[in-house]
Amino acid sequence: MSNKLVIFDTTLRDGEQSPGASMTRDEKLRIAKQLERLKVDVIEAGFPASSNGDFEAVQAIANTIKDSTVCGLSRANDRDISRAAQALKGAASSRIHTFIATSPLHMEKKLRMTADEVFEQARLAVRFARNLTGDVEFSTEDGSRSDIDFLCRVIEAVIKEGATTINIPDTVGYAIPELYGNFIKTLRERVPNSDKAIWSVHCHNDLGMAVANSLAGVKIGGARQIECAINGLGERAGNCSLEEVVMAVKTRRDYFDLDLGIDTRHILGASRMVSQTTGFVVQPNKAVVGANAFAHASGIHQDGVLKARDTYEIMRAEDVGWSNNKIVLGKLSGRNAFKQRLQELGVTLDSEMDINTAFARFKELADRKSEIFDEDILALVNIGEAISGAGERYRFVSLAQHSETGEQPQAQIVFTADGKEVTGQSDGNGPVDASLKAIESHVHSGAEMVLYSVNAISGSTESQGEVTVRLQSAGRVVNGVGADPDIVVASAKAYLSALNKLQNQAERVAAQG
Amino acid sequence: MSNKLVIFDTTLRDGEQSPGASMTRDEKLRIAKQLERLKVDVIEAGFPASSNGDFEAVQAIANTIKDSTVCGLSRANDRDISRAAQALKGAASSRIHTFIATSPLHMEKKLRMTADEVFEQARLAVRFARNLTGDVEFSTEDGSRSDIDFLCRVIEAVIKEGATTINIPDTVGYAIPELYGNFIKTLRERVPNSDKAIWSVHCHNDLGMAVANSLAGVKIGGARQIECAINGLGERAGNCSLEEVVMAVKTRRDYFDLDLGIDTRHILGASRMVSQTTGFVVQPNKAVVGANAFAHASGIHQDGVLKARDTYEIMRAEDVGWSNNKIVLGKLSGRNAFKQRLQELGVTLDSEMDINTAFARFKELADRKSEIFDEDILALVNIGEAISGAGERYRFVSLAQHSETGEQPQAQIVFTADGKEVTGQSDGNGPVDASLKAIESHVHSGAEMVLYSVNAISGSTESQGEVTVRLQSAGRVVNGVGADPDIVVASAKAYLSALNKLQNQAERVAAQG
Repeated sequence: MSNKLVIFDTTLRDGEQSPGASMTRDEKLRIAKQLERLKVDVIEAGFPASSNGDFEAVQAIANTIKDSTVCGLSRANDRDISRAAQALKGAASSRIHTFIATSPLHMEKKLRMTADEVFEQARLAVRFARNLTGDVEFSTEDGSRSDIDFLCRVIEAVIKEGATTINIPDTVGYAIPELYGNFIKTLRERVPNSDKAIWSVHCHNDLGMAVANSLAGVKIGGARQIECAINGLGERAGNCSLEEVVMAVKTRRDYFDLDLGIDTRHILGASRMVSQTTGFVVQPNKAVVGANAFAHASGIHQDGVLKARDTYEIMRAEDVGWSNNKIVLGKLSGRNAFKQRLQELGVTLDSEMDINTAFARFKELADRKSEIFDEDILALVNIGEAISGAGERYRFVSLAQHSETGEQPQAQIVFTADGKEVTGQSDGNGPVDASLKAIESHVHSGAEMVLYSVNAISGSTESQGEVTVRLQSAGRVVNGVGADPDIVVASAKAYLSALNKLQNQAERVAAQG
Repeated sequence: MSNKLVIFDTTLRDGEQSPGASMTRDEKLRIAKQLERLKVDVIEAGFPASSNGDFEAVQAIANTIKDSTVCGLSRANDRDISRAAQALKGAASSRIHTFIATSPLHMEKKLRMTADEVFEQARLAVRFARNLTGDVEFSTEDGSRSDIDFLCRVIEAVIKEGATTINIPDTVGYAIPELYGNFIKTLRERVPNSDKAIWSVHCHNDLGMAVANSLAGVKIGGARQIECAINGLGERAGNCSLEEVVMAVKTRRDYFDLDLGIDTRHILGASRMVSQTTGFVVQPNKAVVGANAFAHASGIHQDGVLKARDTYEIMRAEDVGWSNNKIVLGKLSGRNAFKQRLQELGVTLDSEMDINTAFARFKELADRKSEIFDEDILALVNIGEAISGAGERYRFVSLAQHSETGEQPQAQIVFTADGKEVTGQSDGNGPVDASLKAIESHVHSGAEMVLYSVNAISGSTESQGEVTVRLQSAGRVVNGVGADPDIVVASAKAYLSALNKLQNQAERVAAQG
């Protein structure tokens, strides 16, 4: 068996399906480029048949990405598969991923189909997909809770139809490493043509074991593809986390003996980009990418670590993108220093014009903030791209606000709506509330705020605030982000950015997997 | 072998050692009470010899907790062990936990001792501890990377000296479930008197496998104690997460067949209390306690879930404390309704006076915020206790601030310092920066801000902001929290609370395990 382990990233599909994590086309494209930099083998870019927006996102990614295979999800029917094939047409390398549920519970309660009907539909779907592309993945949804005899029958049939990857998801996060690993081993032993396909695992983290289950599927079961997501993003408790599973395979090479294509130095950048885009914070005690993951290596005195690094360190912080030498830029830094820092941070802007725009934003920020950290630069570039890509019906112009103990906080905001300048005024429970109500006094979106969070971009009283606002309206959920040294201004910017996105999103069909 | 699985919580020891998570005596006591409500078997309350503050915290917990065993950590020397015994004197049930490193790397590089010296010190320490109490736990630090022959020799000797629990930590989070489970199995088979002690696992999450490793230690290895922490708090990427490991054992009872004493309905309350106290956010896609862990059960339309709950749900949200019927209180709600809601939320205030104080805070909040959610009540009680317990050298009185695009933000704050009212004034990059600088214009703490974060307590524009400020000064790190509908006021309160704590904390010795 080959030692090559395929890393299949589903941040943009299963991750994006997570309530509150939906992204625009441009956001997905930006993350796809970072995944390509990470050298992910397969990027699952979306579910083209679920909405026009997702179709366009998959298409844009397929047309842009050169070094990774781009994959589109589809239910097991001709319409979905055709849509996926159409979206993927421009890809250098593409895959169609089709799925159907195989567990008794899902077949009966969700699909309302008999096992024979499911068997037939799976076969026909793979046959149809195989006529459109040579790279077809088939998933048995809720596979870990399916009847093994039935699974063997379905899998043998779809491999005969030409499926090249067979994925056995633990859709509800119910598996145990030992059991799941042996389940896949048994399947591979019993399916006569099992060696004609690469076997794959897709684990959810509901009981905290997604990484261990995935690795048992590989080590015990013989799978050679792991489906995972940056920051473990995904439905409910999320998917297997890419950074953890990759670092486990690398750190314990003595045990796994597998080859990985991943360039781990881009892990932290990918983690921050996904977190900033979705507003999903990464907890400090998150493995690999959490602020404390390597905290003994920073200022805090740790006797053991000072005496010998490997007493407490099994990985090196630098290997996953934590750098110790944060070069600080200031208002005297020139365009070249800024451009060089962007390169070192792994940020590639598409044109000289984009660099000029980013540099202008940098100078504007440097006028108000004496030290510019790497985090500031990343926020500036990420948020800049996010805003300019979102259609910009509304744009922030200026804000004045006042609060004083014993009085009602007041805010007055000026912004443009479709190019026309408008002024809103309101009181509120606090200056942020007043500012957002001042915006609503014109916009009347009626959207419900389901999340409001702020992170200081770097640790100092002068740091910029990065605000995420999540709005829900008519079943749609969007995130807006804004950054500014003034937290009230950052909030207003984030709110306007969310309103812009609310206009650009269409409802979509949800898939599980 | 017994089917009883001992849950040993180390939130207050290993968790608290995590950089930035240090807690005051009163905060630790409050969390200990919640752990008792959870029916945790053993509460590791701290490391008494590390500082006077920690000694007092362990003592306070020992004198208060009745239903859980209270445990104190100590290095393998008489002084540490005596201090632990002294701190635990008032406990209804107590345990001394002593440890020494047994891996070649740690013995050579950190301890600078030979294996024979370590062997002798371990024996003497357990003998000394056993003369002080009948319940002695011994840990082999970096056990998973230790030589198995040497480990067998040490463990046999300490069991002979009377150790009742033997813990084999995976100190650096390097283990793999299959290997770690078999390592413990082999140890238990080879140590002749192994049946005289309960075996225990303590796993770190650096490669994302702490839960699976712990469970392999139990299922394959035959361990019957799991050391874990709320929210997986702990050094670096943290410890095995209590909520995940407990729910895995419960949900997969068919496989584990173990008895647990935990009252899982208090899990979410414990998670929120620990998060609020430490300022360590819980990411939305965290298993069991993350905001999205059961998100398909909330508003979002999910076809499968509507048709049959168990198609996608393996646990019930109510079983871990998520309640669907959030009763909303308002300014017309009386003291009885408030008291009843406190009871339903699992909050027990010690006296009628405490209830009166909390109710007064509730009324004050209700005057400024139309709907009061469960989260508001918990914040009110938690933060109230946190503030009143911290010595209160500084107290917030009033604040006025103003910001306007194109001008420098300004703030004026009034607060008391040692009872005397003072006024500070400053400009800054934003209104928060100006307010904190206005405080510093009087206090001159020189502390460095290492974290600033805001969470809206409930999802609405009118929600309160809960601000966490983490300050570092002379090697000490403290968190301050403040809540207010006005985010600038919440920030000032949080900053004053952090300054109060900075005064009350002494430096301490760090332990690993």
